[in-house]
Amino acid sequence: MERTKFILDEKDMPTHWYNVLPDLPEPLPPPLHPATGKPLTPDDLAPLFPMELIKQEMSQERYIEIPEEVQAIYRTWRPTVLHRAHRLEKALDTPAKIFYKYEGTSQAGSHKPNTAVAQAYYNKQEGIKRLTTETGAGQWGSALAMGCMFFGLELKVYMVRVSYHQKPYRRIMMETWGAEVVPSPSQDTKAGRDVLAKDPECPGSLGIAISEAVEDAASRDDTHYSLGSVLNHVLLHQTIIGEETRKQMEMADAYPDIIVGCVGGGSNFAGQFLPWLRDKLSGKKPDLRIICVEPQACPTLTKGPYAYDFGDEAGLTPLLKMYTLGHTFMPPPVHAGGLRYHGMAPIICHLYNLGLIEARAEHQTAVFEAGVKFARTEGIITGPEPCHDLKVAIDEALKCRESGEAKTILIAHSGHGHFDLAAYDEYLSGRMQDYAYPEEKVKEALTHLPKVPGT
Amino acid sequence: MERTKFILDEKDMPTHWYNVLPDLPEPLPPPLHPATGKPLTPDDLAPLFPMELIKQEMSQERYIEIPEEVQAIYRTWRPTVLHRAHRLEKALDTPAKIFYKYEGTSQAGSHKPNTAVAQAYYNKQEGIKRLTTETGAGQWGSALAMGCMFFGLELKVYMVRVSYHQKPYRRIMMETWGAEVVPSPSQDTKAGRDVLAKDPECPGSLGIAISEAVEDAASRDDTHYSLGSVLNHVLLHQTIIGEETRKQMEMADAYPDIIVGCVGGGSNFAGQFLPWLRDKLSGKKPDLRIICVEPQACPTLTKGPYAYDFGDEAGLTPLLKMYTLGHTFMPPPVHAGGLRYHGMAPIICHLYNLGLIEARAEHQTAVFEAGVKFARTEGIITGPEPCHDLKVAIDEALKCRESGEAKTILIAHSGHGHFDLAAYDEYLSGRMQDYAYPEEKVKEALTHLPKVPGT
Repeated sequence: MERTKFILDEKDMPTHWYNVLPDLPEPLPPPLHPATGKPLTPDDLAPLFPMELIKQEMSQERYIEIPEEVQAIYRTWRPTVLHRAHRLEKALDTPAKIFYKYEGTSQAGSHKPNTAVAQAYYNKQEGIKRLTTETGAGQWGSALAMGCMFFGLELKVYMVRVSYHQKPYRRIMMETWGAEVVPSPSQDTKAGRDVLAKDPECPGSLGIAISEAVEDAASRDDTHYSLGSVLNHVLLHQTIIGEETRKQMEMADAYPDIIVGCVGGGSNFAGQFLPWLRDKLSGKKPDLRIICVEPQACPTLTKGPYAYDFGDEAGLTPLLKMYTLGHTFMPPPVHAGGLRYHGMAPIICHLYNLGLIEARAEHQTAVFEAGVKFARTEGIITGPEPCHDLKVAIDEALKCRESGEAKTILIAHSGHGHFDLAAYDEYLSGRMQDYAYPEEKVKEALTHLPKVPGT
Repeated sequence: MERTKFILDEKDMPTHWYNVLPDLPEPLPPPLHPATGKPLTPDDLAPLFPMELIKQEMSQERYIEIPEEVQAIYRTWRPTVLHRAHRLEKALDTPAKIFYKYEGTSQAGSHKPNTAVAQAYYNKQEGIKRLTTETGAGQWGSALAMGCMFFGLELKVYMVRVSYHQKPYRRIMMETWGAEVVPSPSQDTKAGRDVLAKDPECPGSLGIAISEAVEDAASRDDTHYSLGSVLNHVLLHQTIIGEETRKQMEMADAYPDIIVGCVGGGSNFAGQFLPWLRDKLSGKKPDLRIICVEPQACPTLTKGPYAYDFGDEAGLTPLLKMYTLGHTFMPPPVHAGGLRYHGMAPIICHLYNLGLIEARAEHQTAVFEAGVKFARTEGIITGPEPCHDLKVAIDEALKCRESGEAKTILIAHSGHGHFDLAAYDEYLSGRMQDYAYPEEKVKEALTHLPKVPGT
């Protein structure tokens, strides 16, 4: 019998997140206050985040214990399964061994609850009664709705209006878990009212929704704001993925030569690869290849400059040192909504700048071709974002067929595509289009990069 | 640490299905040929099914080995997890222990692939190249599409036209797995053309779709027909669920006092309870309670007579001894489409008639109330069908709160509700309606019960 799955018992679930900050060969460029250009202090963040998350954002502790209350919730779906893709390998006729760690069995269907649950917990611990956040198609909003449900926190989600009306399913999930969801721009905040006064039909944007969520949180003592990617503490919480995978790969008596994952804000893939990067940094596995995959339509790492920029379109956040296409850049409407982000987690950008990880950009028809190949071998129907991983994993496996090398490829599969079937329909019926890299729009957006005060 | 999940390693997955036929205290009334009234012979079934499934349909062997090729595919998602519903117990303030065996992590999202994979395998083994089936909302069609994909069989699915157009998601799943899906009635069969000649706008029905799928299969030597519930061999394949659960309950050091599950055709619930029924029949656990739950809108066991009837609306199948509301009965449009069946698996009906199992009928708003309670404690968003289980499990747990008894309740949870969120939206917004038992329509349908020839 060939083993197909490597299953960790819940008593063997890792008890600590891994914090890469103390292991970085050079320190991470700090986030800066946009008014002063000075590195951000904990006090600057206190109106929006609980102190424990602010500490984690800057911690130099290598391993941070996962609170037992968070572990208890994790255990409602974790540890997740590591699969060996025997049938895909056979279909590709490759000597490569392909593994995928699958986060799609969480109740919300992706990796996002790993941080949602932790954030809800720390806010609850510090007496917060209510969170706010923004969401586009609803992946993050639904994960946080679930996190807040588990800890009895109220949640208000500002959902980009066009998605609120066109993609009702994730809205209903949020409401089923008890969250309040309003289309943004809304009448509930000054930011929303200002927009609506000018344009009552405004379809909304993630930038406007962030403005509303932040204004709401800043205006009430019982309320904090929550962010689903990019920040160090979010990546930290996601390292449960890679820590589990390390144990499971050991069960499989295997070690990855190549790790692939898609990057939007970067939290899922960092959650997988950071625990392995330790071995690359320590010299235990110096030739480990880590490949970030992004859409050709939004090629942050492969085309953007490394510069300080705002994390959000509205220019409300601190300045983050990132590869960026400019915070005002509006990417073409590829189906992988989670990868349509102008920037990237500062930790990933720093590692890419140091040459420790690679990046590659792909077109969406090629990505869905890989998704269909995967569905027709392994059975799982993959979300548009992790279809990007599959494309690169298949390409690397085919290279192995050419070279005869039996490399071990590990895929950071972030979740299912049950709410993205319209995209499969487009692909299967030949109606899907690719979007070239929008060079002129990026050039224009980069003229709006903020100037760092004092430089 | 309280254990939340009981996980079986794939090497401990059961290797045999359990066949209840030899253990029945009285033999099952046989299916009859509708023209002669004589018990059906294997030859009668040979044009539609492979011989191995026909043998299983009538087998007196207690344990039937699961072919290694089927086990290998099962292992892509099985064993499934047994959960302890700690958070639901706490919310109900009950001394009852509640467990649920969850089939929603299969790639198709339900228990249906357990038989789809086995049926595809046996057909492939006997040289069949192509299967046909009918599907309503698409749950069964998508499972069989996945099963056929795994064994390289072609599949043509006749999908009820109104669902084909109104519920495109499961159609796209089927196509993603490589199946051909046509709206029924279609121009591809005489049955379909006849209907369309009379009514070009006909919305279709499961009965018409069955006629088309059977005609297609009967007219081609390389093609067989496949059915997703009701028949003995389908229930047999589903016993992998209960056999796994037995091992997992042992890990939990627990034994069920009450097992609950919804019944449409009955295959999921029978798959769970039949392996436990052994202990009730042998006297090891004589007081084991097994509760079938059905919709008030389609209360087959609780209101129907026990009589020979056709399995399908069109009157094409053999005569099956069933509790039935009449094969021409069209149930009200409750969201639990999988429970809108006029009859019930003959094995379940026989056991009910012998007083070995119980039945209860519920209204859909109460059922969704239970579904929301479950989502807001355990996190999982449940399909409309297994929401019925939750309602009864919660009621039994609340009785334990009254009586102080710490009973152990086991739920046969058949899958997620990711494609049923519109129903949650209806419930949450107060727009959901209940349907009273349609007594007059049932009376009318029962006048069409077939007369058994020779009686």
